[in-house]
Amino acid sequence: MSFDPDLSDPYLARAAALREIFARDAAARDREGGRPTEQIRLLKDSGLLKLLIPREHGGHGAPWSTALRIVREFAKVDGSLGHLFGYHFGSVHGAHLLGSPEQAADLYRRSAAGNWFWGNARNSFSKTLFGRRDGAWITVNGFKPFTSGSHVADHLMIAWLDEETRDWVFAPVPADRPGVIVENDWDAIGQRQTGSGRVTFADLRVHAGEVLDTGFDRGRPYRSLGVLQQQSTLLNVFVGSAQGALLAARDYTTTASRPWIHSGVEKHTDDPWVKRTYGDLVIRTQAATALADRALEAIDAAFARGRDLTEAERGEAAVAVAAANAHAGAVALEVTSTVFEVMGARASAAAYGFDRFWRNVRTHTLHNPAEYKIRNVGTWFLTGAYPEPGTFQ
Amino acid sequence: MSFDPDLSDPYLARAAALREIFARDAAARDREGGRPTEQIRLLKDSGLLKLLIPREHGGHGAPWSTALRIVREFAKVDGSLGHLFGYHFGSVHGAHLLGSPEQAADLYRRSAAGNWFWGNARNSFSKTLFGRRDGAWITVNGFKPFTSGSHVADHLMIAWLDEETRDWVFAPVPADRPGVIVENDWDAIGQRQTGSGRVTFADLRVHAGEVLDTGFDRGRPYRSLGVLQQQSTLLNVFVGSAQGALLAARDYTTTASRPWIHSGVEKHTDDPWVKRTYGDLVIRTQAATALADRALEAIDAAFARGRDLTEAERGEAAVAVAAANAHAGAVALEVTSTVFEVMGARASAAAYGFDRFWRNVRTHTLHNPAEYKIRNVGTWFLTGAYPEPGTFQ
Amino acid sequence: MSFDPDLSDPYLARAAALREIFARDAAARDREGGRPTEQIRLLKDSGLLKLLIPREHGGHGAPWSTALRIVREFAKVDGSLGHLFGYHFGSVHGAHLLGSPEQAADLYRRSAAGNWFWGNARNSFSKTLFGRRDGAWITVNGFKPFTSGSHVADHLMIAWLDEETRDWVFAPVPADRPGVIVENDWDAIGQRQTGSGRVTFADLRVHAGEVLDTGFDRGRPYRSLGVLQQQSTLLNVFVGSAQGALLAARDYTTTASRPWIHSGVEKHTDDPWVKRTYGDLVIRTQAATALADRALEAIDAAFARGRDLTEAERGEAAVAVAAANAHAGAVALEVTSTVFEVMGARASAAAYGFDRFWRNVRTHTLHNPAEYKIRNVGTWFLTGAYPEPGTFQ
Amino acid sequence: MSFDPDLSDPYLARAAALREIFARDAAARDREGGRPTEQIRLLKDSGLLKLLIPREHGGHGAPWSTALRIVREFAKVDGSLGHLFGYHFGSVHGAHLLGSPEQAADLYRRSAAGNWFWGNARNSFSKTLFGRRDGAWITVNGFKPFTSGSHVADHLMIAWLDEETRDWVFAPVPADRPGVIVENDWDAIGQRQTGSGRVTFADLRVHAGEVLDTGFDRGRPYRSLGVLQQQSTLLNVFVGSAQGALLAARDYTTTASRPWIHSGVEKHTDDPWVKRTYGDLVIRTQAATALADRALEAIDAAFARGRDLTEAERGEAAVAVAAANAHAGAVALEVTSTVFEVMGARASAAAYGFDRFWRNVRTHTLHNPAEYKIRNVGTWFLTGAYPEPGTFQ
Repeated sequence: MSFDPDLSDPYLARAAALREIFARDAAARDREGGRPTEQIRLLKDSGLLKLLIPREHGGHGAPWSTALRIVREFAKVDGSLGHLFGYHFGSVHGAHLLGSPEQAADLYRRSAAGNWFWGNARNSFSKTLFGRRDGAWITVNGFKPFTSGSHVADHLMIAWLDEETRDWVFAPVPADRPGVIVENDWDAIGQRQTGSGRVTFADLRVHAGEVLDTGFDRGRPYRSLGVLQQQSTLLNVFVGSAQGALLAARDYTTTASRPWIHSGVEKHTDDPWVKRTYGDLVIRTQAATALADRALEAIDAAFARGRDLTEAERGEAAVAVAAANAHAGAVALEVTSTVFEVMGARASAAAYGFDRFWRNVRTHTLHNPAEYKIRNVGTWFLTGAYPEPGTFQ
Repeated sequence: MSFDPDLSDPYLARAAALREIFARDAAARDREGGRPTEQIRLLKDSGLLKLLIPREHGGHGAPWSTALRIVREFAKVDGSLGHLFGYHFGSVHGAHLLGSPEQAADLYRRSAAGNWFWGNARNSFSKTLFGRRDGAWITVNGFKPFTSGSHVADHLMIAWLDEETRDWVFAPVPADRPGVIVENDWDAIGQRQTGSGRVTFADLRVHAGEVLDTGFDRGRPYRSLGVLQQQSTLLNVFVGSAQGALLAARDYTTTASRPWIHSGVEKHTDDPWVKRTYGDLVIRTQAATALADRALEAIDAAFARGRDLTEAERGEAAVAVAAANAHAGAVALEVTSTVFEVMGARASAAAYGFDRFWRNVRTHTLHNPAEYKIRNVGTWFLTGAYPEPGTFQ
Repeated sequence: MSFDPDLSDPYLARAAALREIFARDAAARDREGGRPTEQIRLLKDSGLLKLLIPREHGGHGAPWSTALRIVREFAKVDGSLGHLFGYHFGSVHGAHLLGSPEQAADLYRRSAAGNWFWGNARNSFSKTLFGRRDGAWITVNGFKPFTSGSHVADHLMIAWLDEETRDWVFAPVPADRPGVIVENDWDAIGQRQTGSGRVTFADLRVHAGEVLDTGFDRGRPYRSLGVLQQQSTLLNVFVGSAQGALLAARDYTTTASRPWIHSGVEKHTDDPWVKRTYGDLVIRTQAATALADRALEAIDAAFARGRDLTEAERGEAAVAVAAANAHAGAVALEVTSTVFEVMGARASAAAYGFDRFWRNVRTHTLHNPAEYKIRNVGTWFLTGAYPEPGTFQ
Repeated sequence: MSFDPDLSDPYLARAAALREIFARDAAARDREGGRPTEQIRLLKDSGLLKLLIPREHGGHGAPWSTALRIVREFAKVDGSLGHLFGYHFGSVHGAHLLGSPEQAADLYRRSAAGNWFWGNARNSFSKTLFGRRDGAWITVNGFKPFTSGSHVADHLMIAWLDEETRDWVFAPVPADRPGVIVENDWDAIGQRQTGSGRVTFADLRVHAGEVLDTGFDRGRPYRSLGVLQQQSTLLNVFVGSAQGALLAARDYTTTASRPWIHSGVEKHTDDPWVKRTYGDLVIRTQAATALADRALEAIDAAFARGRDLTEAERGEAAVAVAAANAHAGAVALEVTSTVFEVMGARASAAAYGFDRFWRNVRTHTLHNPAEYKIRNVGTWFLTGAYPEPGTFQ
């Protein structure tokens, strides 16, 4: 099992071509952080931002697994772009999962027509944004942290707490609407172009008609699939990072590494240690990939069930995603750190940026702890109980 | 991904039913070692010994993946029976891979009609058996070690070195033919009912017509698939052992384990440590299973290509099997040792025989070193070169 | 750092000589289980059973670290004898820690004079033994599980719950007193000659004067050192088992192992894989040994402080022992399983009994979970809090 | 075993005070790279640059172990300063190991009197610097890579190949002598203030009298101790980095981390997962520290033997250092990566610079591969053979 994408899929083929372009300055962009403006433009040109939008609304109607395989493809060279691409669809899909069919259709159409890129500002972990109703309008004040993609977004999916009811309220808003202040203040050790910093909202006005009609009955299990999309984006960033680190290391090892002075071999790749280390890391990554592929199947199957999705079916998908996520994260950390050993001392030059793979995975795996995913899998195995649908599971 | 077999497959359903019977005295039979006579009888009754024999010759015509999934199923409770079942087909298939079409057809028919169980005595690692041609007959003298299944076999596939040409010669012989002395002297720390001891041959007479006509051109890549069958049997014993150890541990933990005195929980399964440990082991085993399933697909695909199989295609299958084998072995060792920690001190009672899972895997993984499989995967990744077809790869 | 004992210490030299004798039939005795009668006789002849008894009472007055180094020495070939030797001193020391100075002195004198071997029946985990006061006598009924050494003991240190007060009561009793029924029913996967089964007590009569006077003030921290002795016995069984498995494997590898057919080397020990695997396991075992040596220093220091020992000093020793115990257990499991890989398939022959190292460690590490020791170390590091003295910490 | 230095040693106490000062801007200096000018000034003021210089020559006459413990202390907050401090003494000691007693005495005196800081430019791995004899002068041309400390050095110890004899020639030269061009071009992912880039030499003139008189017989084993100093500097950078990462993480966890939303605990440190993770990492680091301390003892003992040092004694020290180095490197990589998990997502903010611990260790462990050290330990264990003294062993 090589790490090559299935190029007979036209979307994966387009993604692979973009990946090569993204690769050129990925290390430099990692150093700089900030906005991948040119890359978002290329994504728009590629049509891939409409990938999951149903054909009847102007999109390509591809399944989630295709989007997640593209996340993986981008993450081979640039974890930030993998992240942004996956989260984009979480927002695009927000109206579908949370709103009325009419709202979903409307947003799909407008998003496809406008070729919008979406940022995420609906983190339900942070109770820092509040809305006050005033007739047909809501005034929103406060802030959201971890707003991935906000710095390059056309539209944001946002969530606030109603000051009176303390219920969560969701709405899509244009990123340039007055009252939306994108701080673009993300400066972390990894995922440096995801713009996952703060958006401040100062007297943002949202019309009641823009608010997603969460009262519409779409089936609780189905509505709670959003978190599985997000967790799947993460896990495919991990898988892609592990694969990408190995591919980059291979290029370096076969072209630049020298045999160790005590090795007794002429080529570095003839050293049994080098063979074994690559073999071991490749096998781990293959296993993580195979488990990730199972999770993709589970995600596609769950979405295909629509509002008929049962709690047990949702639970099986949640367990599959949790297992694949925890496993991929652990493997990716191991792989992205260990590849250095078979490249050698000169591979630590900052110019190569080989450490960005580890920094990206290390940053992204902290988003929610593997420990709790692993416990969820254990509980399911021991008792049959599924994770309670919630913010991260 | 649970560890349940697909019971909609009638052969897997039969195997699952047998597994339950095998489970009853698996611990006792592990202690005793020797012959699983009754279990071989049940296998014969089940019809599963004909599983891979083509329909036109009286068998069920199932693919290799089904046989290997049954290996896995049996190994959940009894590694020896998994091993014997898998190796049986290696011998049945021997004539198909090595002999002429007529010989293969003849042996298939007779094996199916007689409901034979096959033992293996063709280990090409040991140059300890020699044949001397004398007109239409060959006289065979010496011995073979590691003759799995010989102690319960109807027929043996054997291999000797021609005294003159030093070429390998293969022939199927009835296990009760004069000159075949099954020593039944296997006494190892694991896989204790596999009868993998020595067969002595004292003036065994084999007719030239019984010798497999290896000159028949079946394509070198295709002919060298035998070793991949064998490696796949091993890896599915590992996968089944890991799954089985977890299932047995779960039964014990949920019915017999007590919470630790400092845990502060009422049920052992409420301890975060217990949840996490099971979760971690289950996830690793799922990953090993997913990678093993890829190898099964590769095996089926390679056999389906028949004599058209190219070296590259054979190589891809070999790499898939090597990766899955090395990974499954490592995971199974970890799982079968660690499950004790969440069962507790009383689970070390010999009566349960929980240690047999580790002893079986530890014994079976020594058959050929994972190190070299891992290096092969590394070499392939670094250079594209496939493992040279040989005794173990 | 080699694994050789310091032979300039006369007690370690005697122990090393005994180790060689114990080694001769260690594998056979492991298979049989039951009583190491001859070995206990040799221990008596060696004078080592008096090792820790103060000189003024007829012993050698050696520090705990010497006894624990001997545990390690014996465990290199026979985990059961290491275990029994260590627990023997836990019982000998019982009166010293729990009773009055006069009781301690009396028991030391009689134990030294009689060259007694002590068994342990005071497990405070099991509330299954009860005593009823009747004037100057107590009648004891019930049973104790996990009574290591009871099957070869001259004397037992026992503990029961007073039927009225529910307090723990401790007393030394001769193993052949009427009412003491040693079941000798231990049959576990490891530590097979420790006799850690059940002792039944049927109307055992104990005189009030035999009961340890626990009211004597010896300082709570000092009195609670008993559990650290026990935990240290365990950890040195782990260290000795890891060292012993490596030494046995080295003997096999250098005399019996053959190079792997694809290795391209003439001697197995020239294979980089073999060198690395041994190197890795040796380094881990050295690290575990170095940490264990720190714990020995801490134990000696704590005992040397006597009743002046403070809670903080006791706590530091407890943390040192917990860390060394958890680390040694993990390393020993890894080492005793992995050595097989560099010995090869024939090393799985039951006659060698190489699996007893893993079975011994696996059994003994279950006695109390490493998880809770590790948490204790974590809590101490994070907050400075020491483990609350108790049954296992 | 806490990670606190022994403050009763006045040099360690001074080092601990400096460590606190270095800590203040360690993260900022890591980002900037370049020269730690102010820190070298503080080191000079502290007198610690004379630590190992014999008292009779104006130094403190401390043993190597003290210098290496200070390396560890500095590396707790700043791996670069630990590295520079250790390598400084490698150069100071160069004349002692390689030159005549008079040369050594002279350099000791002048170094102490001038309070020199030394940089290293004698890497014998790179054959890129050549000298041509011309009467009493040598003209040196070429370059040296990996010249740690050159950017802040007063003096450099350099090594070139004689153009005629191809022998290595060593000499100390002032860093500001014409012909010495310190490129200060080090830009790696870690150890960013070590200045381990290139020094170019353009017609540097060295007088024959400055050349170390390597013909002086000091005993081959003793002369080859230089590499063990260097390897010990590396390993104590690893140990210090692991300890420092844990100390920094503890500060963060106890003051800034929040309990996980599904944890059910009020304080993050009450989560069993957090306790266990810290406990596990602390125990590993303690074991690495204990093994490192053994290596320090071996180093001191070897130096104390002087020219009487035998090959076997040198070999034992080499094995001790190799084991401690490989172990510390592996533990430090694990610890510096894993601490993030128990700090949480916000700890990935670049401002904290917590990733510098991993980047430093990852960079520094590449200097020479652990694989070969581990093989050396394995070979010694299997055969008794010591590593052949050489560039890295």
